[in-house]
Amino acid sequence: MSSKQDYLNKINELDLGSNQPKTLDSSDFFLVAEERRSVRQYDPTFELSMEEIEEILTIATKAPSSSNLQPWRFLVIQEQELKEKLLPIANNQKQVTDASAVIAVLGDLEAYKKAEDIYGDIVKSGKMTKEVKDFYVSSIYENYSHLSEEQATKVAMVDGGLVSMQLMLAAKAKGLDTVPMGGFKHDEFIKAFHVPETFKPVMLIALGKGTQEGFEKYRLPLNEVVTWNTF
Amino acid sequence: MSSKQDYLNKINELDLGSNQPKTLDSSDFFLVAEERRSVRQYDPTFELSMEEIEEILTIATKAPSSSNLQPWRFLVIQEQELKEKLLPIANNQKQVTDASAVIAVLGDLEAYKKAEDIYGDIVKSGKMTKEVKDFYVSSIYENYSHLSEEQATKVAMVDGGLVSMQLMLAAKAKGLDTVPMGGFKHDEFIKAFHVPETFKPVMLIALGKGTQEGFEKYRLPLNEVVTWNTF
Repeated sequence: MSSKQDYLNKINELDLGSNQPKTLDSSDFFLVAEERRSVRQYDPTFELSMEEIEEILTIATKAPSSSNLQPWRFLVIQEQELKEKLLPIANNQKQVTDASAVIAVLGDLEAYKKAEDIYGDIVKSGKMTKEVKDFYVSSIYENYSHLSEEQATKVAMVDGGLVSMQLMLAAKAKGLDTVPMGGFKHDEFIKAFHVPETFKPVMLIALGKGTQEGFEKYRLPLNEVVTWNTF
Repeated sequence: MSSKQDYLNKINELDLGSNQPKTLDSSDFFLVAEERRSVRQYDPTFELSMEEIEEILTIATKAPSSSNLQPWRFLVIQEQELKEKLLPIANNQKQVTDASAVIAVLGDLEAYKKAEDIYGDIVKSGKMTKEVKDFYVSSIYENYSHLSEEQATKVAMVDGGLVSMQLMLAAKAKGLDTVPMGGFKHDEFIKAFHVPETFKPVMLIALGKGTQEGFEKYRLPLNEVVTWNTF
């Protein structure tokens, strides 16, 4: 029987060749989507500024979300000491310490509590009347505050997936690499980083300058995943 | 008290102006991500071929997923009669019948059963030995077949979010518009479209030629959603 750690790290034993991740000659969407790979080898000396990371997060958060509640919350782990603290929690996957930052994407189950802020801002811009805003905010409270934890988690995970994809594409478009990690000890992570009780982990994303290209994309043929009109 | 239907359709009463969605002068990633909007008005006469939809799905499915299991499954609803059947299930949001297609993104809780196909293909390409493949496939069965339904659903929702974001960006890069819809009657949908038992709805995405631009993006300031290093 193999441990989760063995399984997650096995990929590093595979022969990926010695190629670096491809440097894109444009930020064309189709190229970026094609060339984004899950990269597990990073230059540990490469540093990203807060401003560079914020630029990527600003683009990422242009993603849509359920009722525009933006339940995503990000913990950006940059300090080496904290990345080392995270390492065993993330099954010793070495990208955790080698990448410039690890971004924990979290979903707030009480994101609806920001509805007044979000829709209030739209009123200020003159795009919505106060009456419509009040209607929206009360409808949102009505719909979201009564969700079970399981239902609220589903919403947070879907929206967390949306923002994570846009984050990884934005990084690639800026010449950086990423790898999403779902395989880590969620409970230990929550405890070690004092994650607020209503924030649920979506994934960790290592972000930095890749030094070895990711594994080639193998995808199921479309006819195995697409059905037309009805089952 | 307002119904979910009133709430979901209220946005159509807002003054969005008479502008059509912006026609992009390039498929640059940053432009595509910025200009993608949730568009709710569609040209009902605009048709998309199966090939055009397949192109978008091919790009979408270049998204990453947990252990590359690609749990996403798509039901592409194009026939007008079926879109009309979907309309009340989707709270009478008119984009359901006006858009060229509605793509139901689903997550298969038993996606791990395709591990042998996926990793077997990599062996055929010569990028992995049979021994490593066997190790991966058995680890995947070990890790995924023992997940609770709740845990498996979380994985399917995150991966479903990833693929949905890439799908919506691919559509925008191709000059089309989309709107993601989480607000529909999941149980009724499953029954009406004979959705297999292990497939869980992630969202519906209307896809077509938008006729009115979507609502401007309002986003929380980064400092409300980002924390540095530790909570």
